[in-house]
Amino acid sequence: MGARKPFSKVIKANIGDAHAMGQVPITFIRQVLACVTYPDLIDKADFPPDVKKRARDILGACGGGSIGSYTASHGIEQIRQHVAEYIERRDCHPARWQDICLSAGASTGIKNVLQLLCNHLDGKPSGVMIPIPQYPLYSASLAEYGLTQVGYYLDEAAQWGLALDELERSYKEAQKDCNVRALVVINPGNPTGQVLTRSNIESIIKFAHAHRLLVFADEVYQDNVYAEGSQFHSFKKVLRELGEPYSSTLELASFMSISKGYMGECGLRGGWAELVNLAPPVQAQLYKCVSAMLCPSALGQAAIDCVAKPPMPGEPSYEQWAREKANVLSSLRERATLIADTFNQMEGFKCNVVQGAMYAFPSFELPPRALEAAKAAGKEPDVFYAFELLEQTGICVVPGSGFGQRPGTFHFRTTILPQPELLKQMLDSFKQFHQAFTAKYA
Amino acid sequence: MGARKPFSKVIKANIGDAHAMGQVPITFIRQVLACVTYPDLIDKADFPPDVKKRARDILGACGGGSIGSYTASHGIEQIRQHVAEYIERRDCHPARWQDICLSAGASTGIKNVLQLLCNHLDGKPSGVMIPIPQYPLYSASLAEYGLTQVGYYLDEAAQWGLALDELERSYKEAQKDCNVRALVVINPGNPTGQVLTRSNIESIIKFAHAHRLLVFADEVYQDNVYAEGSQFHSFKKVLRELGEPYSSTLELASFMSISKGYMGECGLRGGWAELVNLAPPVQAQLYKCVSAMLCPSALGQAAIDCVAKPPMPGEPSYEQWAREKANVLSSLRERATLIADTFNQMEGFKCNVVQGAMYAFPSFELPPRALEAAKAAGKEPDVFYAFELLEQTGICVVPGSGFGQRPGTFHFRTTILPQPELLKQMLDSFKQFHQAFTAKYA
Repeated sequence: MGARKPFSKVIKANIGDAHAMGQVPITFIRQVLACVTYPDLIDKADFPPDVKKRARDILGACGGGSIGSYTASHGIEQIRQHVAEYIERRDCHPARWQDICLSAGASTGIKNVLQLLCNHLDGKPSGVMIPIPQYPLYSASLAEYGLTQVGYYLDEAAQWGLALDELERSYKEAQKDCNVRALVVINPGNPTGQVLTRSNIESIIKFAHAHRLLVFADEVYQDNVYAEGSQFHSFKKVLRELGEPYSSTLELASFMSISKGYMGECGLRGGWAELVNLAPPVQAQLYKCVSAMLCPSALGQAAIDCVAKPPMPGEPSYEQWAREKANVLSSLRERATLIADTFNQMEGFKCNVVQGAMYAFPSFELPPRALEAAKAAGKEPDVFYAFELLEQTGICVVPGSGFGQRPGTFHFRTTILPQPELLKQMLDSFKQFHQAFTAKYA
Repeated sequence: MGARKPFSKVIKANIGDAHAMGQVPITFIRQVLACVTYPDLIDKADFPPDVKKRARDILGACGGGSIGSYTASHGIEQIRQHVAEYIERRDCHPARWQDICLSAGASTGIKNVLQLLCNHLDGKPSGVMIPIPQYPLYSASLAEYGLTQVGYYLDEAAQWGLALDELERSYKEAQKDCNVRALVVINPGNPTGQVLTRSNIESIIKFAHAHRLLVFADEVYQDNVYAEGSQFHSFKKVLRELGEPYSSTLELASFMSISKGYMGECGLRGGWAELVNLAPPVQAQLYKCVSAMLCPSALGQAAIDCVAKPPMPGEPSYEQWAREKANVLSSLRERATLIADTFNQMEGFKCNVVQGAMYAFPSFELPPRALEAAKAAGKEPDVFYAFELLEQTGICVVPGSGFGQRPGTFHFRTTILPQPELLKQMLDSFKQFHQAFTAKYA
């Protein structure tokens, strides 16, 4: 059974996997999925009538009335319509269902749109601007598609916002070697937990417009906003409200997932992209490429339907749904505060407010002798620290070098997902570890 | 509402989508899925105890006991073990669960393995031999990955078997422009419906071994064998029984899906690959690439579990499961015979026995005046015919040029999936159409 360790179990704070850390599924979603899976339940189970109606509606949109039939490659039309209505309610601006492309999670959607940029122009590859630190899906997919990674640093001192001069610097330097064609923004931020201000988003849109960049708005954490005064502004909404010339010309793809938010349904694989201002032949090409892969999971699409069109006030499932959603989000809010506060009490640590998403990304200082020990062990200092933490406490976090960070700085990403009691234990254990580590290498 | 047509509904015989054409889901699969989706059902629903035990076992292998958690990228280990056991029972030869990679349908698995061949050697792209006619996933994926399509013709006169001299011709011609590195074989055949003989498979293995080709054995129709005297032989089994030097050196990837067989669960998106004799670093690279996409649908994996480990004799669900499976397959068998017999009675038609899979791919002759009419309409003759068929009868089939065919020959693919009554109507309507068409262009 391997070596004995000084802890009883590993705490997986390394991945945004809510249910794995004890978050309970939303009843409405699961009742609807059970009914579409085993339609006898529509008649027989003791489920609320709006659950049963929803299941019937979804099955009515499936070939042969079975969730086991292929759907259209970009998703069931009725569910795309519900997504468009969701976006309209969110933004108070129109959305077209024809511009909604369902996918097996946001990752697939992002990769599909990235692939549109694969062509070389004037013999140079396309470049895609991504934040540093960034979610590694981007670096991995850029490598896969032969696209050039163009990093821009987020401004840690300004709550991980995007600084215009840094965007310009990054663009200008990269333009020598590639055609910079797209800009990725993750809001709320992963791994950094910021929620962008409206004025920051306006500046980003103007920058992207000036350089004719396609904006990838990774907005999968749009429901995960915790901090007082923070609010989620979708790129689509800000774009529309900025008016011309931005509103009808800036190309934008916004991504959403059922894996995050209050649902945390990672295993079901469901997500969508809204495509804004894409040239019709480009969008047609995207839909054609998508069609080679048949369709995203029909059950994942059914879950998307429940997220895009949740129970409304007055409907039988509304109260339970609203209560479950509020409980998840308020508990996450408390944990976001607890985790940042705790880190900020630790020697050498500095942690921005976790305004949103599911992660803290604190910076920490290491004593010179720890840097030497890391070097002797052949590891980056943040990797060395994270391994020591794991070995001593069972707490699993991801070193900052996995996401990128300014040279000479050290970070790690931890999720805020352990349930409250476990999180408190984890943070106590972390504090003790850090004291011992600091003492050892003082 | 568009123009009036001379038929009341479209019969979608163009795609292997069993449930959409009225096939009923297997109860065991759906009961297990309902339970893992809504675990209260494990206690409350009137389901057999083996269903409930299976659901508990699957949830026990999920993070936090929820199907909403991410799984490992190549699938839940317990389910990979069940797949290995399934293969051992099928072949009477050992299988290693570490060599099983679960995926969101066979298509994803095939694309993942194809992508391993993307590197250029000596400045030449890699070539992949694919049958003509072929399932278009292959041509589309080869184009996507910059791989060279190397077509070899199936021998229509020999029940769509693989002729060695044709394989050699194809290989030799292609080797000038690319490095031929892989050979795709679809058995039972799509769109062609053949089931390869054991001796044909032996020859193919020897050919692949002589040229050091990775064999893609697309075996998703392994349960769909209908013809008297036909039997499914997996490439893995034949490889093992051929002994050395083949058994431990030929690289093989075999693909399976829950979308076909007796299950027809296309919408759930589940499949697997068994990797045989891949160099460990190559397999590690594949698993690494797969990990960028998080995981296949956990519900799709749960369905794979039900397929790989169905109820066994003596278990409560066995009899119903066995009856449902037998009913689906015997009905498909009758339809396979009916459809080929009917085509063979039609003037100018020739249809091989539909030994397996879900399709017939008859050849047909067209009178010279029909060829002229097609030319005038700017369509390939088989496309012209298929469009006329659709316009006149509502029967939707796919022209042979979508799959490839020898120049000057004309085919189409129809599924055998319309339920018996509808299929009879469809074939009557088809006969009338063909008589009228032939008369019109005589």
